[in-house]
Amino acid sequence: MAQNRVYIENLSQYIGQEITLNGWLYNKRSSGKIRFLLLRDGTGIVQCVMAKGHIPDDVFAKFDQLTQESAFSISGKVKKDERSPGGHEIDLTDVQVISVAHEYPITPKEHGVEFLADRRHLWLRSSRQHAIMRVRHRIIKAIRDFFDGRGFTLIDAPILTPNAVEGTTTLFDTEYFDLGKAFLTQSGQLYGEAGAMAFGKIYCFGPTFRAEKSKTRRHLTEFWMVEPEMAFYDLNDDMDLAEEFLEHIVQTVLKDCEPELKVLERNTAMLQNVKRPLPRISYDEAVEILHKKGLQFEWGGDLGAPDETAISEQFDRPVMVHRYPAKVKAFYMKRDPKNAELALAVDVLAPEGYGEIIGGSQREDDLDKLLERIKEHNLPQAAFEWYLDLRRYGSVPHAGFGLGVERTVAWICGLDHVRETIPFPRMIYRLTP
Amino acid sequence: MAQNRVYIENLSQYIGQEITLNGWLYNKRSSGKIRFLLLRDGTGIVQCVMAKGHIPDDVFAKFDQLTQESAFSISGKVKKDERSPGGHEIDLTDVQVISVAHEYPITPKEHGVEFLADRRHLWLRSSRQHAIMRVRHRIIKAIRDFFDGRGFTLIDAPILTPNAVEGTTTLFDTEYFDLGKAFLTQSGQLYGEAGAMAFGKIYCFGPTFRAEKSKTRRHLTEFWMVEPEMAFYDLNDDMDLAEEFLEHIVQTVLKDCEPELKVLERNTAMLQNVKRPLPRISYDEAVEILHKKGLQFEWGGDLGAPDETAISEQFDRPVMVHRYPAKVKAFYMKRDPKNAELALAVDVLAPEGYGEIIGGSQREDDLDKLLERIKEHNLPQAAFEWYLDLRRYGSVPHAGFGLGVERTVAWICGLDHVRETIPFPRMIYRLTP
Repeated sequence: MAQNRVYIENLSQYIGQEITLNGWLYNKRSSGKIRFLLLRDGTGIVQCVMAKGHIPDDVFAKFDQLTQESAFSISGKVKKDERSPGGHEIDLTDVQVISVAHEYPITPKEHGVEFLADRRHLWLRSSRQHAIMRVRHRIIKAIRDFFDGRGFTLIDAPILTPNAVEGTTTLFDTEYFDLGKAFLTQSGQLYGEAGAMAFGKIYCFGPTFRAEKSKTRRHLTEFWMVEPEMAFYDLNDDMDLAEEFLEHIVQTVLKDCEPELKVLERNTAMLQNVKRPLPRISYDEAVEILHKKGLQFEWGGDLGAPDETAISEQFDRPVMVHRYPAKVKAFYMKRDPKNAELALAVDVLAPEGYGEIIGGSQREDDLDKLLERIKEHNLPQAAFEWYLDLRRYGSVPHAGFGLGVERTVAWICGLDHVRETIPFPRMIYRLTP
Repeated sequence: MAQNRVYIENLSQYIGQEITLNGWLYNKRSSGKIRFLLLRDGTGIVQCVMAKGHIPDDVFAKFDQLTQESAFSISGKVKKDERSPGGHEIDLTDVQVISVAHEYPITPKEHGVEFLADRRHLWLRSSRQHAIMRVRHRIIKAIRDFFDGRGFTLIDAPILTPNAVEGTTTLFDTEYFDLGKAFLTQSGQLYGEAGAMAFGKIYCFGPTFRAEKSKTRRHLTEFWMVEPEMAFYDLNDDMDLAEEFLEHIVQTVLKDCEPELKVLERNTAMLQNVKRPLPRISYDEAVEILHKKGLQFEWGGDLGAPDETAISEQFDRPVMVHRYPAKVKAFYMKRDPKNAELALAVDVLAPEGYGEIIGGSQREDDLDKLLERIKEHNLPQAAFEWYLDLRRYGSVPHAGFGLGVERTVAWICGLDHVRETIPFPRMIYRLTP
């Protein structure tokens, strides 16, 4: 029964026992009459040892056959060994070769990024990529557990949509039978609002797409986004939730992914600080910070990446910037009742130059004002009739935000580029493997 | 603080206390001097009561203002009341109107399916759709918990892919910058195999797409699929996992979604039976069943929906049919060593006419044989070089399967059509709202 198999991550349960393990050769070395095989099985790495004369010669001879990434099965006794990777060692009694690998292209020497990216299907086996994917998995699970544990209902938004939420120039489209073009979603938010009016608190979580011609270290054309949306929430409630959410994600990863963060050589000092309350500053105050730093910035513009970095440098944890000029924000955001030039928006800026990881707002809940905005933005009203219905039938104050998974993974893992944060990255110049 | 708000699902914690609730009018009625308001807040429905003379006249008068789906906030005292929906009742002390709804198009009377589908954003508020979405959420959580709890790593497969896995006629495509066409994924499996070689056991879980011109009650163009893939698993191990997985999903929903299944009037007798072991029959035995039933069926063909129903009628729980003729199955499936005409494939057929809910197989792990299949199927070898690499570097026996979320929801909820199983269904003739 496959379910009763032994995996390296569980070796501590088998100390002193004879076990069988399947895996691949990560590395090997000889020392006199001793042979060391480093076996990886996807859950960890363990050192296996055999001594000439102590096991049959035909078994001992298999050492030479095994090239890097060859697959094999071993039997042997588990010992505790603090010096070994993972803390265990196995005294081999038998080795069964499953397949001998061709000469493996990825070796311990340095390779160029494009060389590795072309071999992403193999590169994923390296310990660094392994660590990143495990942190990614933990982040995604932390996100879902957070919402599942707080009464949110998962409402998956559609990927194929009949119209655009934010601009039409950055959309992928496809022919949709006799119905014309369909567009790949850029955000599930509008659908999430329908969900919030039905379920009170919802989240959607799926891939989103931007056909942006941006070749930066922060851009993927396909990325995963989680978007909670809550009825009867105002901007303050939204910020309360966002800070609780970020604290939950970061503290969970710190608790559960210590070995992975160590592999990544992540200095976690700044991550330890991600605890409530997060500082909250207005856009006006953010502009003041930029001016005090002697930076050129005109009130009314959107914050660029260097501006975000300059602002976040002033804080020891993520900072929330709220109440942006309405004209740089989306049509669906509610205006500040105290100043109609401002949108009730919030961006959360990660420290260490990682920039915006959350963008959110209170939504316009007044039918007439929303109609006005749709006209101002030259959006086709007919396509938004269903969205306007949410203001015709039981409109309430509501708010939500979106968090991009890949930027969050990059930040928490301390990576230079988002291309390592997703198993098979898609960028303007990369669609393979 | 929004987090400290009271929701209807938690009313039992507030018996005898004065609370405030936000929500929408689900229904109302008068009886002499008493007024009843049914308030829904997305987590449940509660009956609120006010008696003329016992509360200020101006509050009492608000009853007349409130149309179906109007939003309001109430204050009052929580009482236990077994006769009330949800088991509680609230004696009102105040009512604050948030918004008065226009005349709501969905009334308790019968509406046509297209009328409702056009108003999906509102239809989701009805108790039946509510129940389905909550079961859907529970199923998705059960799926993730199952794999997360068994050492699987989540490896999200890409949505935008450079080539097709199963046929090219049913693909959505989009222009991808200067790289030509990208196709929307039909399955994450090939990527999952790369993941399994890196992580041992993985799953991918995301939306998949088929541009099939099928107008049946089982087809969506966009649907969610979970696909586990395991290194060192053969077909038997795969079937062991599949039956454990199905038992877990169904028993979890039975345990946690009793109220929802009651709303759906689901007879759960057949679902109770979904426990290991599930019956396993070969394709040959399946054909024998069809012949014994007097049905026309020629050995070698794929099982159609009526065949699947006829076979599953013979069993009191899902049945696994294994070892299909290789020529009706995909190129990547391993042949049966005992009979090269057969593929080591398995389909799990749900009872009650719901047909195939799981399709899986052991994969071909021999480089030369896989190359042969790619040629036989006229697939472009260059596009599969990365996939062939998985056989060059550390090939091992491996297997996996895919489960379609929407068919599973339809089966467990006992629905006639998959269009109700996803928040915003996409079908050949529907791309809105």
